[in-house]
Amino acid sequence: MKPQQLFASDNASPAHPEVVQALSDLSLDHHISYGDDPVTAAAETAVANLFGRDCEVFFVYNGTGANVSALRCMASPWEAVICNEMAHINEDEGGAPEAIGGFKLLGIHRPDGKLTPSDVKPLLAKRGFEHSNQPAVLSLTQTTEVGTLYTPEELRDLTSFAHANDLTVHVDGARIANAAATWYRLQEEAGTPVSATAALQAVSSDAGIDVLSFGATKNGLLFGEAVVFFNSDLARPYRFARKQTTQLHSKMRYIGAQFLRYLKNDLWLQNALAANEGARRLAAGLAEIPGYNVALPAEANGVFVEVPEGLAPVLQEEFHCYIWNEHRNMVRLMISWDSRSDVVDRLVERCRELVANIGETT
Amino acid sequence: MKPQQLFASDNASPAHPEVVQALSDLSLDHHISYGDDPVTAAAETAVANLFGRDCEVFFVYNGTGANVSALRCMASPWEAVICNEMAHINEDEGGAPEAIGGFKLLGIHRPDGKLTPSDVKPLLAKRGFEHSNQPAVLSLTQTTEVGTLYTPEELRDLTSFAHANDLTVHVDGARIANAAATWYRLQEEAGTPVSATAALQAVSSDAGIDVLSFGATKNGLLFGEAVVFFNSDLARPYRFARKQTTQLHSKMRYIGAQFLRYLKNDLWLQNALAANEGARRLAAGLAEIPGYNVALPAEANGVFVEVPEGLAPVLQEEFHCYIWNEHRNMVRLMISWDSRSDVVDRLVERCRELVANIGETT
Amino acid sequence: MKPQQLFASDNASPAHPEVVQALSDLSLDHHISYGDDPVTAAAETAVANLFGRDCEVFFVYNGTGANVSALRCMASPWEAVICNEMAHINEDEGGAPEAIGGFKLLGIHRPDGKLTPSDVKPLLAKRGFEHSNQPAVLSLTQTTEVGTLYTPEELRDLTSFAHANDLTVHVDGARIANAAATWYRLQEEAGTPVSATAALQAVSSDAGIDVLSFGATKNGLLFGEAVVFFNSDLARPYRFARKQTTQLHSKMRYIGAQFLRYLKNDLWLQNALAANEGARRLAAGLAEIPGYNVALPAEANGVFVEVPEGLAPVLQEEFHCYIWNEHRNMVRLMISWDSRSDVVDRLVERCRELVANIGETT
Amino acid sequence: MKPQQLFASDNASPAHPEVVQALSDLSLDHHISYGDDPVTAAAETAVANLFGRDCEVFFVYNGTGANVSALRCMASPWEAVICNEMAHINEDEGGAPEAIGGFKLLGIHRPDGKLTPSDVKPLLAKRGFEHSNQPAVLSLTQTTEVGTLYTPEELRDLTSFAHANDLTVHVDGARIANAAATWYRLQEEAGTPVSATAALQAVSSDAGIDVLSFGATKNGLLFGEAVVFFNSDLARPYRFARKQTTQLHSKMRYIGAQFLRYLKNDLWLQNALAANEGARRLAAGLAEIPGYNVALPAEANGVFVEVPEGLAPVLQEEFHCYIWNEHRNMVRLMISWDSRSDVVDRLVERCRELVANIGETT
Repeated sequence: MKPQQLFASDNASPAHPEVVQALSDLSLDHHISYGDDPVTAAAETAVANLFGRDCEVFFVYNGTGANVSALRCMASPWEAVICNEMAHINEDEGGAPEAIGGFKLLGIHRPDGKLTPSDVKPLLAKRGFEHSNQPAVLSLTQTTEVGTLYTPEELRDLTSFAHANDLTVHVDGARIANAAATWYRLQEEAGTPVSATAALQAVSSDAGIDVLSFGATKNGLLFGEAVVFFNSDLARPYRFARKQTTQLHSKMRYIGAQFLRYLKNDLWLQNALAANEGARRLAAGLAEIPGYNVALPAEANGVFVEVPEGLAPVLQEEFHCYIWNEHRNMVRLMISWDSRSDVVDRLVERCRELVANIGETT
Repeated sequence: MKPQQLFASDNASPAHPEVVQALSDLSLDHHISYGDDPVTAAAETAVANLFGRDCEVFFVYNGTGANVSALRCMASPWEAVICNEMAHINEDEGGAPEAIGGFKLLGIHRPDGKLTPSDVKPLLAKRGFEHSNQPAVLSLTQTTEVGTLYTPEELRDLTSFAHANDLTVHVDGARIANAAATWYRLQEEAGTPVSATAALQAVSSDAGIDVLSFGATKNGLLFGEAVVFFNSDLARPYRFARKQTTQLHSKMRYIGAQFLRYLKNDLWLQNALAANEGARRLAAGLAEIPGYNVALPAEANGVFVEVPEGLAPVLQEEFHCYIWNEHRNMVRLMISWDSRSDVVDRLVERCRELVANIGETT
Repeated sequence: MKPQQLFASDNASPAHPEVVQALSDLSLDHHISYGDDPVTAAAETAVANLFGRDCEVFFVYNGTGANVSALRCMASPWEAVICNEMAHINEDEGGAPEAIGGFKLLGIHRPDGKLTPSDVKPLLAKRGFEHSNQPAVLSLTQTTEVGTLYTPEELRDLTSFAHANDLTVHVDGARIANAAATWYRLQEEAGTPVSATAALQAVSSDAGIDVLSFGATKNGLLFGEAVVFFNSDLARPYRFARKQTTQLHSKMRYIGAQFLRYLKNDLWLQNALAANEGARRLAAGLAEIPGYNVALPAEANGVFVEVPEGLAPVLQEEFHCYIWNEHRNMVRLMISWDSRSDVVDRLVERCRELVANIGETT
Repeated sequence: MKPQQLFASDNASPAHPEVVQALSDLSLDHHISYGDDPVTAAAETAVANLFGRDCEVFFVYNGTGANVSALRCMASPWEAVICNEMAHINEDEGGAPEAIGGFKLLGIHRPDGKLTPSDVKPLLAKRGFEHSNQPAVLSLTQTTEVGTLYTPEELRDLTSFAHANDLTVHVDGARIANAAATWYRLQEEAGTPVSATAALQAVSSDAGIDVLSFGATKNGLLFGEAVVFFNSDLARPYRFARKQTTQLHSKMRYIGAQFLRYLKNDLWLQNALAANEGARRLAAGLAEIPGYNVALPAEANGVFVEVPEGLAPVLQEEFHCYIWNEHRNMVRLMISWDSRSDVVDRLVERCRELVANIGETT
């Protein structure tokens, strides 16, 4: 029997079996804890090598921890972090950024999940006004919370604007692998293929970002993310911030070993390509069903689709997807690294049935 | 070749192979994330069953996260947490309790790592004085940071005193399994053997504590601890506090599966018994070497020993132990669940050699 | 020569001379500090008597301090405070609520500065969702940041809704005296005159609010505000929260003495009536000038007016008013307790001149 | 009838009448709020001129606010502030430093209230250890909480040591005027008289400190303190930190006017000299009574005296002094700027009577 698949989130999926195997393969040696061991060192190097430039790599437990601990090194409590209103830091981290970092989040309303310099600019008007938190950081999500991609050019425009305006740039890369996979596929389709690392760099480090939360749990790990500093000034106090944010693991090699396997043979890219391909297939299938409207381009591994009145709760019940926007009958369907075309096709088929049933019962 | 063993900390050891195996054994099914899955549910029940009484169980990543998230539900920022000066929360959590919880820690100087009601009482003198943080919590470590045990009676005296004085009681049980193992062995030796769970309950829940940080990583897990609330009022906001403290894991079943295996066939107790036995053997061995003074009773898995002048750095270099007190030439040797008598004996032998060498060179 | 008057803010005005005199009149006796003195006690009683019901009164330095210290007793860091997007706590307190209180502010966009139950309701949808701050407090401003008034009925509707939904209600009353004055005048004009205290109670305590930041500095004091708890459970830890928020004054009688004079002979109401009357006169005058649009009802002491293109910076320069909304050429003109009709008339006259000049130059 | 005098604290005294008069003398003009007015500007300059060197001056409400807001610019939450265990920031600020600043206070036990480099040095041992808050600031109190003075040389030794060890130096100068007065008198007595400002500089800025909390409320103001930055890097974010710490006053000129009068004709020094003289007289008087032991040199305006068994509560009752150390029967008697020799003498007389009564009753 094949394993059950849900569409609730890409963290509903299991860890990749080879990543789990890497844990079994670890020796039973003792090692100095908190990262001072050869496995962790190798994993840090492996992550750094992905980016082909000077950077510092630190492992943490989870995405919220990565974001909050990184942002604490970027913004003082009287400063502000600018982000899309739907950003994970603003919507889904239980208020950890404010409560632990102290700073204020300035969320910008923009339905495609992205930001442009002209969105950000008005928020700089209160620079120097002592009654307002002072904007210090621009935090972007790549790919965004609604499955869209910042192209390298869009990203570069933002980092240029940010740096010209004394903002540093944080990227929440909970799905950075999916961004790289999207770019990899786009370049392939354009007849200008690039390597896995080049694709990753194009949608992150090459654009001049300062800090990246390098996600991995959603794309095949059991637990563990990395924070990558391209700006070494910001990295200086990070070890202490990580510890204080409760994100320092003692038996660190159990994160390192996962990353080593994740990066070997581009497993990270293969996983992300599979997830993206599933989303593309799903979006294409749904787009052909009358009454379904794929509301946002399925550029990564999420599909945001408006469904016929009354069907959202049914889909939620059957496929464990989220109702993203109740008023618009929009549901979110997330595809994981272990996406299977038969499961996707069955979902499409079921969606078609459901709309047909409505027709009959009306 | 046998695996290398260090004495730096009990988190230098690897995870127990059966615990690692439990991760490989997990199905590849998708599950709703953040703990709403059957593996996590079973693990929560298994932990609760250990204590034989009503309690609520929550999994987190690590000990600092367990302590800080729990204490946030026990003390407001203008309140205070009373603890031994050497408590992990006071010495080794990077200031997370203060920075995240806001409250003040009131550390009491007492070299055996423990506290008694008469140590605590003077700190209640400023109750009601609006310029001082108001004592709200008594936080004890079982077994303590210096390897000593609170007997059930000592613990009960403290909880009675605390509750009579409007303090709730938190126990940092990073080594609670070692405490249970100590009590288990003592009862066995006294001819009044008890079950594994009875031993655990005697040194924790039976004494009327409110909240326990139930450690497991130091005793055989890859990562993961539990917070157990015996006081349901304090538990009410905990889910939100856990999330905000960045301690909510998405793929929670990978913690749950470890706990299930850890609790099966009393693996937790076996591990702790082995570690404790190693410490006892080590302490006995060292006690017989002239110039070595076992400074504190080795009641659990740590040995604190004063060594001849000049040897502390040598031992640190060779065995990766900590120099606990430079002025007293005291080192800390921690024994893990995978303790081996040959390694312990070799350490003792080496200590004897070193002191003999000193004799020769002088 | 008459004193200069500005329209930047009602805190640009001086303290009322009789309030200053009250400080000179204080005896040179020593008194126990931090509020344990007869002047403070009398002032606390005087404030409490205004409301004619059980309440607890505490003095603090300023409005930000009043709001933040009060809200800390109403919301835990993982909870949220719902307010209008333009609320002082959200826009003008330098991020103190988040940085000191930890909680998240959920700002609702509504241009009249007010809120209704139907505005608030959607924000309760994430109750119980552990990834989101949990709504705990509804914070209203009376009169609002844009010079509008909650009628007693509107306020009662909100408190009923809030309490039915497990929210407590905080009122930022930086301009509560102006609200009372508005109601007092409205009742007078309706032929159903009420007393000063009845007017105050109608727009605050009678509506079932839990906590009031009782402002006074903007209405004639040198410094000093009060926090009034109608909900005694919330008041319990307040003394400690006040101290920790750095808002406990040592020589407290110098706040108490101001309040005693401020409340004597309804000086507070007289001041507010004068300010409101100035705003009404100003709004009426501006409304008659072609090209000027009084954008919001001048129900208290602020006038928000859209001015002809290009004039906003001129008015800002000449009258020190704020440009409230650059896109709409809207300026804010605040009137103080010492409002003089000649000054208001000269402002209106000047506005008329300016628009005429534009006509000529075009 | 002469005003009543207490010995509870130097903030039990009233404001100096001339300081109060300065408030009455202020014009009734409107002024831009939050410090952008000529009175505040003049007061800032006047404070800066006291120190005869580049510095930046900011007014705040109270001492806790001054200390906390200043320290927030000096230490990140994962850093630590080193101080004497009895420091006001550690003992009397309701946990505001930790709760608002996040950082940890490392209190050193030393009964004379002072610190030396050799006291501080051991606390630097954990530099770089990621599990510990990193020492960043040395906070000294001048004069100390127990009435002792750092000589210019002692202070310079500390700042040299601190700067050589990457610590910046904060001075809590709640009683800095008393320190200056002590030095002024000592120099006078040594036949090498100095000016008021030279005396002040000798015990503060000349020693190379970075930031001073310049107290004034205890020495004659109604309210208001200043924070003086000699280190301009640290000052850069201060405006925002002050606002966020709820310490920004709107009608700022009411603080400025007090400071202008306080600094005119060296009123600040006269007040402090009077207080110190009172303490000296009191200490001398008590020293002659059998059974009384002046426990610490009365170098400023506080007298710490051990009294015969049983008398401490009597003195507390009659003179409102604090029992400083119950075990040692030590009381604290604080003398204010308005000290009168008749009141001091009566206190001495009464102490003599009390001890005589004991003799009789025993």
